[in-house]
Amino acid sequence: MNYSMIRFILGNVLKFEGAFLLLPAIVGLIYGEPSGWHFFVTALVCAGVGFAMTAKKPTEMMLYTREGFVSVALSWLVMSVFGAIPMTTCGDIPFYIDSLFETISGFTTTGASICPDVEALTHPTLFWRSFTHWIGGMGVFVFIMAILPMLGGSNMNLMKAESPGPSVSKLVPHVKDTAKLLYGMYLGLTIIEALLLFFFGMPVFDSITLTFGTVGTGGFGVLGDSLASYSPALQWIVTVFMILSGVNYTVYFLLLVRRGKDIFKIEEVRWYLLLILLAAGLITINVRGFYDTLEETLRHAFFQVASIITTTGYATTDFDLWPEMSKTILVLLMFVGACAGSTGGGMKVSRFVILFKTIRKELSLIIHPREIKKIRMDNRAVEHEVVRSTNVYLAIYFVLLLLSVLLISVDEFSFTTNFTAVAATLNNIGPGLDKVGPTANFAAFSVSSKLVLMFDMLAGRLELFPVMILLLPDTWKRD
Amino acid sequence: MNYSMIRFILGNVLKFEGAFLLLPAIVGLIYGEPSGWHFFVTALVCAGVGFAMTAKKPTEMMLYTREGFVSVALSWLVMSVFGAIPMTTCGDIPFYIDSLFETISGFTTTGASICPDVEALTHPTLFWRSFTHWIGGMGVFVFIMAILPMLGGSNMNLMKAESPGPSVSKLVPHVKDTAKLLYGMYLGLTIIEALLLFFFGMPVFDSITLTFGTVGTGGFGVLGDSLASYSPALQWIVTVFMILSGVNYTVYFLLLVRRGKDIFKIEEVRWYLLLILLAAGLITINVRGFYDTLEETLRHAFFQVASIITTTGYATTDFDLWPEMSKTILVLLMFVGACAGSTGGGMKVSRFVILFKTIRKELSLIIHPREIKKIRMDNRAVEHEVVRSTNVYLAIYFVLLLLSVLLISVDEFSFTTNFTAVAATLNNIGPGLDKVGPTANFAAFSVSSKLVLMFDMLAGRLELFPVMILLLPDTWKRD
Repeated sequence: MNYSMIRFILGNVLKFEGAFLLLPAIVGLIYGEPSGWHFFVTALVCAGVGFAMTAKKPTEMMLYTREGFVSVALSWLVMSVFGAIPMTTCGDIPFYIDSLFETISGFTTTGASICPDVEALTHPTLFWRSFTHWIGGMGVFVFIMAILPMLGGSNMNLMKAESPGPSVSKLVPHVKDTAKLLYGMYLGLTIIEALLLFFFGMPVFDSITLTFGTVGTGGFGVLGDSLASYSPALQWIVTVFMILSGVNYTVYFLLLVRRGKDIFKIEEVRWYLLLILLAAGLITINVRGFYDTLEETLRHAFFQVASIITTTGYATTDFDLWPEMSKTILVLLMFVGACAGSTGGGMKVSRFVILFKTIRKELSLIIHPREIKKIRMDNRAVEHEVVRSTNVYLAIYFVLLLLSVLLISVDEFSFTTNFTAVAATLNNIGPGLDKVGPTANFAAFSVSSKLVLMFDMLAGRLELFPVMILLLPDTWKRD
Repeated sequence: MNYSMIRFILGNVLKFEGAFLLLPAIVGLIYGEPSGWHFFVTALVCAGVGFAMTAKKPTEMMLYTREGFVSVALSWLVMSVFGAIPMTTCGDIPFYIDSLFETISGFTTTGASICPDVEALTHPTLFWRSFTHWIGGMGVFVFIMAILPMLGGSNMNLMKAESPGPSVSKLVPHVKDTAKLLYGMYLGLTIIEALLLFFFGMPVFDSITLTFGTVGTGGFGVLGDSLASYSPALQWIVTVFMILSGVNYTVYFLLLVRRGKDIFKIEEVRWYLLLILLAAGLITINVRGFYDTLEETLRHAFFQVASIITTTGYATTDFDLWPEMSKTILVLLMFVGACAGSTGGGMKVSRFVILFKTIRKELSLIIHPREIKKIRMDNRAVEHEVVRSTNVYLAIYFVLLLLSVLLISVDEFSFTTNFTAVAATLNNIGPGLDKVGPTANFAAFSVSSKLVLMFDMLAGRLELFPVMILLLPDTWKRD
């Protein structure tokens, strides 16, 4: 284990966090709110610690997969530990564990909140919460790599550990160019959505923060009722941008290089869009009595479906009051999640497609025992490694889900609350049902349950493996 | 597809069912209840149809895996379709779909009931319900093979499809001898338990029927409150025999051949016993305020844990009233299930052990990429095929679970009801929580939901694959 290299990486991450924290400090200046100073001081602390940790260059710059995974998992943890400080010291979230929960929920683009009253928070805190979504959505290492060629030949191992989805295809030959391209497209989506929202009458602060939450598939809002009180036009705009943010970014790359026709060859995207249509259609039929007009019904159905499948977690209506079938559809979509290679969480559509194809293949092997058949996707054979890691992913996922539900059951909330709380954090969604429904929050859980859910959020965002190997004693042995 | 051979097998199964149905007819004679005649007439019908179907020998006696799986799945369906008739015609369960649900629940050793008032049923029906547990527990083909060498060289493919668990190890070289041995041990356990129950004061009818439900890990009782009104001694006896019935039968074989020392080398058995101790211990602490004495607390904790992990489904107390943590422990045990090679259902302890070892191995591969490590169990390397089929099993299981919950959600019961109803049927347990708790029943579900749950019971008992391939169009093609 290359400990000095890990120290060096963590130091660099902290320097970047110092820079990020200046933004909410500026927001404090604009709104004349003293809480901004807490973000400024934390920025200085981060920078100070960061420079101290990077003062001595590591002798060996090479990172193996193991160190890549550990560095990424620890970086996300360290960022959250520091990022939680100002929200507590300024008094917005008095209890540090709650603030840590909120920050991890932010960086992992979960959007599960422990705040009973969002509107009582100061602007710097509101901005920071949403900005962590934006940083976490595309990934902090993708950002660092887009800016500086920090880590020699180790970049790929870091990006592999941080980027979601089984199909991290390098869009262009160099990691640095890929990172730049990804952030370019990300920034493009961000600017277009923010301008549209502003143009259709949303206040500028709301436009920016809600856009962070949309493109990062996060879900923190600035109003107590999430997005319920914005105009229908604004709700539709957010719906469209949520769906766009759950798409594999390869799609935008294909558009950029004028290969738009190839988009519909991507099986995952087809299934993703089909699922959205199907789910929203069924829900529209199921909740038709709840709203006055067809437009309103369609709007709420599509918004909630887009919000859950992309693992954003915004709401325009209290779907906990919907009939059981609609709620169950949403719970199932929680597990599906968005496309691989998007900013969304969940198990990812492509994993489900691979699982279905694996099942089909194995059953077909019983019928034709001598058949040799490879699983194919987008007209290419899926590598054996991908199938195996998908299976292991599912196994870890299943075990983590069951164990987490058990561990938080000590708080004596209902099974629906516990099950959907774990589903909503492990899949980085935000709200669940019952006591953690869209109008409720996670404040009532005990500290131990909050720790379990924080673990689930990190495990979910980093796709299980980086966080899981932190638990193996073998990982920490010196070579 | 060898259709004539499948017809021949189904015919033979029906002949055996005709013989089985004579027993409840005799019970009717003993108690002077006219419903016995309905069982007698159905027995004649089964025998008639059976002889008609087997009149012409198939030209080709060979069965491939595919035909083996299809034959077994169809046999279980046909047995249930015929076995459900007398309970409806005699008026005990007026609605045929309900009677079919009850019969499938019986044969699959689920024990989920649609009867609001068990005590209103006549003795032949009560006996038949419990006796289907006994037939289904060890498997009808194991029974047939123990008695006659019916099917030439195809026996192994049938037994492979019917026997639960990934480790159907042939105890002795010949299939027929294995089948005889298994039924011998099964019969032994049955006789010992029934005598013990009778000796400790249980009425003879109850002793026999409850023993069928115990050793078959079924769960149908003859009283409205399951086992709550029997004496503590009787409850403890049933607890012990439930645990014994969830053990891999290899254990009894080792005892028979005086190799008792080797029992504790079986990892699965160690984990199974450890899980029972751990779960019952935690529940004892969690529910300590509910009962008057420590004995009573321990008794209810151990009884419920044994009942759920072995997928029997008896109850001595309404565990739906227990605190959430205890309920969650029981829900998790529903998924674990008993040992492979026992009469119990669920995913099986050994599959979980293999899953955990797979996870460990894959994580360890990230740390030591060049390591070559095989998964070992009982000091032997686990074959790659077993690991792969365990993974596919989990994938099918997960998809089936989620889809079933969605399909039955149309009935608008709570998420807890729907989730545990599916868990309780797919794992062949019986009761769940909330609306399907131990004091409730499955009567309120719609016909479509009942069909989904019947499918889940059959899929669970036959370990998914035989039932799943019925759904593939390819299966039905003529060669």
